[in-house]
Amino acid sequence: MNNKNQITSQEEFFMNIAIEEAQMGDFPFGSVIEKNGKILSKGHNLGIKLNDPTAHAEMMAIRNYTAHYPAENLMDATIYSTGEPCPMCAAALIWCGIGHIVYASSIEELSSHINQIMISCDTVLDSANFRKTKITGGVLKNEAIRLFKK
Amino acid sequence: MNNKNQITSQEEFFMNIAIEEAQMGDFPFGSVIEKNGKILSKGHNLGIKLNDPTAHAEMMAIRNYTAHYPAENLMDATIYSTGEPCPMCAAALIWCGIGHIVYASSIEELSSHINQIMISCDTVLDSANFRKTKITGGVLKNEAIRLFKK
Repeated sequence: MNNKNQITSQEEFFMNIAIEEAQMGDFPFGSVIEKNGKILSKGHNLGIKLNDPTAHAEMMAIRNYTAHYPAENLMDATIYSTGEPCPMCAAALIWCGIGHIVYASSIEELSSHINQIMISCDTVLDSANFRKTKITGGVLKNEAIRLFKK
Repeated sequence: MNNKNQITSQEEFFMNIAIEEAQMGDFPFGSVIEKNGKILSKGHNLGIKLNDPTAHAEMMAIRNYTAHYPAENLMDATIYSTGEPCPMCAAALIWCGIGHIVYASSIEELSSHINQIMISCDTVLDSANFRKTKITGGVLKNEAIRLFKK
């Protein structure tokens, strides 16, 4: 995983948009999928409104995209998520061929707010024998944690 | 994990329905969600038809259900899947509160047909600190593997 001093201003730019998106969520999680500087889709948690426990921000960003455009375009895109993706979202992003996952706060950092732990995103990504996905954590993590205090 | 001699005739009954379902899939995977002897939903792989790499049989069974009924009803249901759920599907089933996952062939047993390995379903289930999900493998596994030879 990259450490904080490798975080780029582009990563902060798109994470800020993910943080805006999170504020519309049933739980304060938001995601933005970007490629070549262009936003392909956004998503926020709709677990309650859609009555669907799998409607995490990352899954909604994927669904919002694949509902209209070829999934192939997601290959080598980057996703910005306000929280570390759970194993469902991490593996979904692998299946979509996303090249880079950038998140704000880790599951561990959010554990006082969401006491629901599963294996780390890193573990899921490392286990995939058919695709290598880059991961960067900690981009605007304090801002993302603050969403839980509102 | 249970071993083969603990497999029940009910598990074989519903797995046979999952195998029928698999034959409609873009890839030969099928799932059936059952509770109290009643089928709540079915799903097969629609990755190509829906242009959605996350449209695995288990995800489709969940989506087919939550599109019409309260997700709460999935609590303590059982899912029968012709293949061991990938981390995306395993975690999605945890989020839905599914009590028991029954699968036919393991990812390892299918590895000569699908050379795409991620961490095992067991590992994902064991890591969840907020829910315990039972798992049984090997129910009609030869029949499920045979689907790949058609």
